Amino acid sequence: MTSPTAAPGRRPTRSAVDTRARILAAATAEFAERGLAGGRVDRIAAAADANKERIYAYFGSKEGLFDEAVRAIIGELLDLVPFDALDLPGYAVRLYDFTLSHPNLVRLGLWYSLERPSSLEDLPQAKASTARKVEALVAAQRVGAVSDSIDPQRLIPLLLGMAQGGILLGPTPVDADEVTGRREALRVAVARLIEPDG
Amino acid sequence: MTSPTAAPGRRPTRSAVDTRARILAAATAEFAERGLAGGRVDRIAAAADANKERIYAYFGSKEGLFDEAVRAIIGELLDLVPFDALDLPGYAVRLYDFTLSHPNLVRLGLWYSLERPSSLEDLPQAKASTARKVEALVAAQRVGAVSDSIDPQRLIPLLLGMAQGGILLGPTPVDADEVTGRREALRVAVARLIEPDG
Repeated sequence: MTSPTAAPGRRPTRSAVDTRARILAAATAEFAERGLAGGRVDRIAAAADANKERIYAYFGSKEGLFDEAVRAIIGELLDLVPFDALDLPGYAVRLYDFTLSHPNLVRLGLWYSLERPSSLEDLPQAKASTARKVEALVAAQRVGAVSDSIDPQRLIPLLLGMAQGGILLGPTPVDADEVTGRREALRVAVARLIEPDG
Repeated sequence: MTSPTAAPGRRPTRSAVDTRARILAAATAEFAERGLAGGRVDRIAAAADANKERIYAYFGSKEGLFDEAVRAIIGELLDLVPFDALDLPGYAVRLYDFTLSHPNLVRLGLWYSLERPSSLEDLPQAKASTARKVEALVAAQRVGAVSDSIDPQRLIPLLLGMAQGGILLGPTPVDADEVTGRREALRVAVARLIEPDG
C-alpha cells in the first residue's frame, strides 16, 4: 500500500482519511502496549504503512498522536455507552462491559494518568460530557428518579469507580460466571446507591 | 555514608538494615516516577548511597526491587488503614485519605498494572487481606450490620472502586473544600450501599 500525498489546501482525499485512520489504529496499539515514553513513532509508521513525515504532518508530535489516540478511544466510549440518568444501574453495567472488552481503553487511560501532565477529566470532551451528565442527574433528581442525598457532581466519580475501578487495578476476569457475578453485584449496588428516599 | 558488608550467615547489622531501607526508599521514588522499564538501578544506587552489587544481593533484580517496593507500600496501606466491617463508611474515607496523601502508592499501583504480568490482587499479602475482609463481612452480615444483598467477595472491589477509583484516573484535588465534599459523598454512598434491609 502506498501513502498518497495530500496537497495543502485541498480537502483530504479518501486515501488520506484511510491513512490517518491506519496511523491512529497503529498508534493506539503501540501506545496501549508501551505507553508514551516507550512507544516508537518508527514502529507506528511501519505498522500503518505510512511514513514518519506524514505522521508529524497529521498529528504534530508523538505527544499529539498519543493524545489523539486517547481522545479517539474516549470518544468511542462516550458514543457507544450513552449516559442514562434514568437507568443508572444499566448504564454502570454497560460501562463495565465496554471497559472489560476494551483493554486498550484501560491501558491508554493508565498511561495517560502516569505520563501526561493533565488529567483525563480535563480533556474538553470529558468536561463537556461530565457537564451533560450533571445536568441529566439534576433533572432525574427533580423528578424523583434518583436520590438527592448525593450531589450529582460527586455521584459521577463514584459511579465510574464502581463500574471501572475493579478493572483498572485488577485482572480481567476470564471466567464468564465471574463476569456475570460482578455485573449483577454492580447493578444491585448502583440501584441501592441511587434509590429515591422515602 | 559507607555501605557496610554483611557477612553471610550473620544477622544483618543495624547498618545493613539502614542500607536496605535507603535502597527501598530510593527505589520507591524512582519507580513511582518512571515505572519499571524507565526506572534505573544506577539512579537508585546513587540516591541511596549504595552500590549496585548490594542492590542485586538484596533484591535479586530490578524486577525484584520493583515488586518489593510495591509490596512495601501495600503493606503500609494494610497496616495503617485496617479494614473495619462494622464501620465501612469510615473505612472507605480512611482509604480515600490515605490514597490521596500517598501519590507513590497510586503511581506504583498504576505502573504495576501496566508493567507486571500478574495483578496486584494476586500478591500473597493482598490475597490474605482480601480473605480476612470477606470473613469480616460475612460476620457483619450475620449480625445484621451489613446488608446481605451483595456477596462480600463482590462488595470489596466496589468499596475500593468508590474510595480509590476517582484518584486513579482523576487529578488530585488541591482544594480542601473539594476533598471534604468528596469525602462526605463517599461516606453517604457507602452507608447507602451497605445499609441493612428492612
